[in-house]
Amino acid sequence: MRMIDLIERKKRGKELREEEIRYFIEGFTDGRIPDYQAAAFLMAVCFTGMTDREIAWMTDAMARSGDQVDLSSIPGVKVDKHSTGGVGDKTTLILAPLVAACGVPVAKMSGRGLGHTGGTVDKLEAIPGFCTAMNRADFLRTVRETGACVVGQSGNLTPADKKLYALRDVTGTVDSVPLIAASVMSKKIAAGADAIVLDVKYGGGAFMKTAQDAVQLARKMVEIGRACGRKMAAVITNMNVPLGNCIGNGLEVAEAIEVLEGRGPDDLREVCLVLAAQMLFLAGKGEVDICRQMAQKALDSGSALEKFRQMCAAQGGDPTIFQRPEILYEKAKVYELAAPWDGWIQEMDAEACGRASMLLGAGRETADSVIDPAAGIVLCRKTGDPVKEGETIARLYTGRPDQLEQAKKELLESYRIAGEKPDAVLLVHGVILGE
Amino acid sequence: MRMIDLIERKKRGKELREEEIRYFIEGFTDGRIPDYQAAAFLMAVCFTGMTDREIAWMTDAMARSGDQVDLSSIPGVKVDKHSTGGVGDKTTLILAPLVAACGVPVAKMSGRGLGHTGGTVDKLEAIPGFCTAMNRADFLRTVRETGACVVGQSGNLTPADKKLYALRDVTGTVDSVPLIAASVMSKKIAAGADAIVLDVKYGGGAFMKTAQDAVQLARKMVEIGRACGRKMAAVITNMNVPLGNCIGNGLEVAEAIEVLEGRGPDDLREVCLVLAAQMLFLAGKGEVDICRQMAQKALDSGSALEKFRQMCAAQGGDPTIFQRPEILYEKAKVYELAAPWDGWIQEMDAEACGRASMLLGAGRETADSVIDPAAGIVLCRKTGDPVKEGETIARLYTGRPDQLEQAKKELLESYRIAGEKPDAVLLVHGVILGE
Repeated sequence: MRMIDLIERKKRGKELREEEIRYFIEGFTDGRIPDYQAAAFLMAVCFTGMTDREIAWMTDAMARSGDQVDLSSIPGVKVDKHSTGGVGDKTTLILAPLVAACGVPVAKMSGRGLGHTGGTVDKLEAIPGFCTAMNRADFLRTVRETGACVVGQSGNLTPADKKLYALRDVTGTVDSVPLIAASVMSKKIAAGADAIVLDVKYGGGAFMKTAQDAVQLARKMVEIGRACGRKMAAVITNMNVPLGNCIGNGLEVAEAIEVLEGRGPDDLREVCLVLAAQMLFLAGKGEVDICRQMAQKALDSGSALEKFRQMCAAQGGDPTIFQRPEILYEKAKVYELAAPWDGWIQEMDAEACGRASMLLGAGRETADSVIDPAAGIVLCRKTGDPVKEGETIARLYTGRPDQLEQAKKELLESYRIAGEKPDAVLLVHGVILGE
Repeated sequence: MRMIDLIERKKRGKELREEEIRYFIEGFTDGRIPDYQAAAFLMAVCFTGMTDREIAWMTDAMARSGDQVDLSSIPGVKVDKHSTGGVGDKTTLILAPLVAACGVPVAKMSGRGLGHTGGTVDKLEAIPGFCTAMNRADFLRTVRETGACVVGQSGNLTPADKKLYALRDVTGTVDSVPLIAASVMSKKIAAGADAIVLDVKYGGGAFMKTAQDAVQLARKMVEIGRACGRKMAAVITNMNVPLGNCIGNGLEVAEAIEVLEGRGPDDLREVCLVLAAQMLFLAGKGEVDICRQMAQKALDSGSALEKFRQMCAAQGGDPTIFQRPEILYEKAKVYELAAPWDGWIQEMDAEACGRASMLLGAGRETADSVIDPAAGIVLCRKTGDPVKEGETIARLYTGRPDQLEQAKKELLESYRIAGEKPDAVLLVHGVILGE
């Protein structure tokens, strides 16, 4: 088998055979296939795509390229959740304890933030003492004892994906639906859950810009997961507006606690309930409606909050955050952003909000930037809200006053404020039902 | 400037700016831009193409990447010819002395064969003693004194093209019209001629499979040449059938001598006259018709042959070939191929003829294969000819009897022999007129 033939065939839009896809992934991972041939192949895929079978073979080969997590020592159906990423997305902080409170174990490995805002691991690390680095045995024991544990990726998980992603990042081959789908799903398959719920976001603050593109990506990922023997569901959610009011690691933990207390912003609570219902459904807890009621009850009764307390305790997090959540962000100085004129917020640029919060210290500009857990933004008004000239529309939290003006400018420009009340934002575009 | 941005823009089909194209060529040549980014860029070009301006900028940057030959010490208009390559194509051996005999100096650098058959340098080296390695000063002096000199590429000509071609060869990015056009034209521009006539071939034995594709490639190359200040013309010729009757280095020299003697196969003579007429026209020798008559006269009067004798003498070639051309191939054993049944040759697979001659030793299977100058094929019958069962349709010349059966099989399968007399082959599809 020669890589040049695979490149030529893919360039002409032909379907490759299973052994050819495995040859590419294995050969690229162990260095037999050089970067330049892989780069040419990936660019050809960007133009000619891959069939569902090819994506499933590629995903499987990538999942098998390193360690695979064995969750069989945890009783019951293990459900994972994956979000394609957005601004203000703290759903994992809420869903892990919420689903666990309903009796479904959550053994979750999360990542750090690659883009403008922190990832779940960065958010959890805003909790003083919280430990996200755990060996495999402790991780599994914690899930068995507590019902939920969220840690960073450890071990040699999907080295093929790591190497491929690094190459895609420098060769302009990131934005290919088959490649994104295989990358996401290989990590999820290797992480060992029986069922996976995907939160595929679309809009200005998401990777996929339109709902149609998000549906297409979601369908591919659901197909791959099923081909790999996983129960799958996907929820397509709006990321034109940041989710919830808080952006920034400590602020997002505080907002997650609010939701777990049965309060918090409506949009964030709603997305969490839709996702939790799908997770519980895949775990066999009954029909989706019943599952949603179960989740609502767990939020409103305090049982989800109690589960988060237990999870924090098991992972070394300071319990003071439940009495005084302000310790999560009070080290930052607070600055106010005023509305420039009267009107209704017609739309927001979620990506610009993300960039502004990065400037304040909440995200990484480069891979070795240090995140300030207290930095971020609280949006006091969002799309659909009326504003009066001079009133505070956002509060900026930072320890870097030198970047403040630039962040304020980015944030202010992210709002479009004009005359009439706009139509309500559609929060959940649709659900690809679980199986 | 970042290469990743150039890749992304080209992937979306945008036109790059001149300084961006130069940044790519210079950065890739000196190693600042890694192979994997260049490979991704080249694959994107295969899908989205390049504008005429981009191709001209790229050609110019590649031509300037190394030495540029200065032909100004040779008086008059210097005309070069380039063929995109085909099976049995020995036109350079005929055209260099023919055009020089008409008073137009030919200072030509040629290549070795990359594919199934030898290149012009390989063919000339079939002449005992013939020297194709010459320093620049001797080369120029020989042209001034003799009127014609054909040597191999020397010096550091177009290193950008050499490096790019090597990468294209292993990344499935060879068959892109803009990249082919820039590659060919950069070498021609660097080689220093004032005027260039292109022989762009199409058909089974050529790189471009259809006349339409050949016309498209020819137009691009003519545009580039004009943009670089060269007088240009292009002839589109048929390569479904090998050109002339001989394939193989020594055999092709012998056939070239036949044409220079005013004899030889009609198709080869005709293509040479069409090309010579364009070359003489660009050199200012009068209207194309007049130029063609001039060339015919040079063949029929023996003046072109005399020029070839002088050129051979100046380059150290054994003059015995003019008395006994069979010394060029008599070291090989000769085997006959018989027609399997009666009929007319409907068509031939020129590429298969090339492969057969390579098996006999006339071409290179790998870059370090040694060519046997005496090996090759004489086609006794070609497309359009009637054949009788058992009569000889080809003679195979080889010093490798072990490959004979495979070569015979390839060659026999390259003929389609069936009932009716087929339509005549169109030899010259058209001419893109000179300017």
